[in-house]
Amino acid sequence: MIRVAVDAMGGDRGPEEIVAGALDARSDDVSPVVVGPRGLDTGGLELLEAEDVVSMDDKPTDAVRSKPNSSMVVACRAVREGKADAVVSAGNTGAMLAASLLEIRRVSGVRRPAIAVTIPSKNGASVLLDAGANADARPEDLVQFAHMGAVFAEEILDVRDPQIRLLSIGEEAEKGNQLTLEAHELLSASELNFAGNTEGRDLLGGGADVVVTDGFTGNVALKLLEGTIRNLLDAFREEITATARGKLGGLLIRPAARRLRSRLDPDTYGGAYLLGLRGLAVIAHGNSSRRAIANAIRLAARGVDHDVVGRLAQRVGDTVLESSASTTPTPT
Amino acid sequence: MIRVAVDAMGGDRGPEEIVAGALDARSDDVSPVVVGPRGLDTGGLELLEAEDVVSMDDKPTDAVRSKPNSSMVVACRAVREGKADAVVSAGNTGAMLAASLLEIRRVSGVRRPAIAVTIPSKNGASVLLDAGANADARPEDLVQFAHMGAVFAEEILDVRDPQIRLLSIGEEAEKGNQLTLEAHELLSASELNFAGNTEGRDLLGGGADVVVTDGFTGNVALKLLEGTIRNLLDAFREEITATARGKLGGLLIRPAARRLRSRLDPDTYGGAYLLGLRGLAVIAHGNSSRRAIANAIRLAARGVDHDVVGRLAQRVGDTVLESSASTTPTPT
Repeated sequence: MIRVAVDAMGGDRGPEEIVAGALDARSDDVSPVVVGPRGLDTGGLELLEAEDVVSMDDKPTDAVRSKPNSSMVVACRAVREGKADAVVSAGNTGAMLAASLLEIRRVSGVRRPAIAVTIPSKNGASVLLDAGANADARPEDLVQFAHMGAVFAEEILDVRDPQIRLLSIGEEAEKGNQLTLEAHELLSASELNFAGNTEGRDLLGGGADVVVTDGFTGNVALKLLEGTIRNLLDAFREEITATARGKLGGLLIRPAARRLRSRLDPDTYGGAYLLGLRGLAVIAHGNSSRRAIANAIRLAARGVDHDVVGRLAQRVGDTVLESSASTTPTPT
Repeated sequence: MIRVAVDAMGGDRGPEEIVAGALDARSDDVSPVVVGPRGLDTGGLELLEAEDVVSMDDKPTDAVRSKPNSSMVVACRAVREGKADAVVSAGNTGAMLAASLLEIRRVSGVRRPAIAVTIPSKNGASVLLDAGANADARPEDLVQFAHMGAVFAEEILDVRDPQIRLLSIGEEAEKGNQLTLEAHELLSASELNFAGNTEGRDLLGGGADVVVTDGFTGNVALKLLEGTIRNLLDAFREEITATARGKLGGLLIRPAARRLRSRLDPDTYGGAYLLGLRGLAVIAHGNSSRRAIANAIRLAARGVDHDVVGRLAQRVGDTVLESSASTTPTPT
């Protein structure tokens, strides 16, 4: 039985929506543990009490330090203490990052955790990281992100020997900024299945299983992708409903539009992984629906089932040993 | 009469398409000058001879140095020599950047030129810069981009007192990477109409007249925007044509789809400005159609008519004086 701690007080839609999602995700293998205030109606799910709440407006680090009994921090602590195998929160992303760093802590050897987001694409899904855990990154961080993304692609997306690409401004190795030029060299020299740069235009087109970037670029790209999809679908609806002919056509294509929306719906994936921690943490959208929460819990459970944390620790450990071996002169 | 030098050998569609666009753009006020090999059929337009060609695969700086008689370099030189008031090329962007830096040169005080791209948005258009002239930028560069973008918005987009925003990963001042955090401070302290950060999700939604970013992020964002629009429209067509009902609906919404496409069509704007040079240069898409070329020529002519170069030089000059005045101790 996989136990997933769910922060009932995170998210814009209130605890009822979260509890409903948790109930939907309950199965023979998955047991959600609701974290929230005493007296909360959990529909029969186990309750882990936490009186305080981190709000969307709280400053991340302050909130986490000043609210050790908030549902978010208690949910993360449950993972460290073994009361849960994973944690899901739809709360303040920055605070969730701070809470999980404080309570779950980094895997030894991991320099910086990364937010890994699943991107729907033509040929199945790919994973983009870092989507915003750290705004600034060094070239070596990007190499670690690549290893972490490879574990995610293998275990969560079921891809064998995933292909890695570096998000840049041209496919040629010499196109990029200082960060990506250096990262390109390091990635080429690594044992990773590195296929070179990819450009923004190919993000939705597939072509890479893992797309590596710094958290600033990744966050701008992810929000741009979401915003463009929303703006474009809105603009299309506007044009269609502008004429009677269009309205009739709009009725006829409604099922097609629904299929497209579900292909692109972030709720399908439920949330983003925080990779590089000693426990499994999933960050769901603030506006998560019941369906999104249920999928986020399933996503977290899948990560536990596939031992993403253990495999990642193993892989990063090997890489650290390997790179220190190659830089340490061998005694002869 | 505004004379615009047009590189006939740049672009993927060949000189016939370019010449056709130039003929379309010819008017009582605009006189395109075709730059290409002797004997090229210009349909009666003036020909400036240039035997060599910069190809899309050429390395920018090498190509420009080794091909001083290429159509691209000759077209840029025509601006410096006063034979033309502006230049338009749909050729290799990197080479065009190198050629215009070499031949037209930077405005005194401008640290780095920037590529300014018009983005269609809900509330009219906005300008994004730098879209890729330089991969790395310093905070002070972003402030100059803001001034340059303000001139563009005033003169080309007809916006009074344009609002500037900084592309970042959250609206709050403390969200961003090292570059944007420092740029935010400088922008706030400037006399610009700076309205704070904007996120990727708002790029198509309007809200800022000028969006400032470094060339790496700007280029990733621009290509992501283009790719997402294309991928999404393709995916929609795919879903619609999957059923008979959808196909019928598709026929009915065809005019709406066409309106949407033209709202988003990059050909409407024709090209991107290279801002910060002593002459006016417009870079058109490699795949520019006749219509795109004609619009790029009109865009260039509008820039000449509104003296974008002069106003930009004046504004940057004032800013340079002002900032050196504020850092130089006043003798008392």
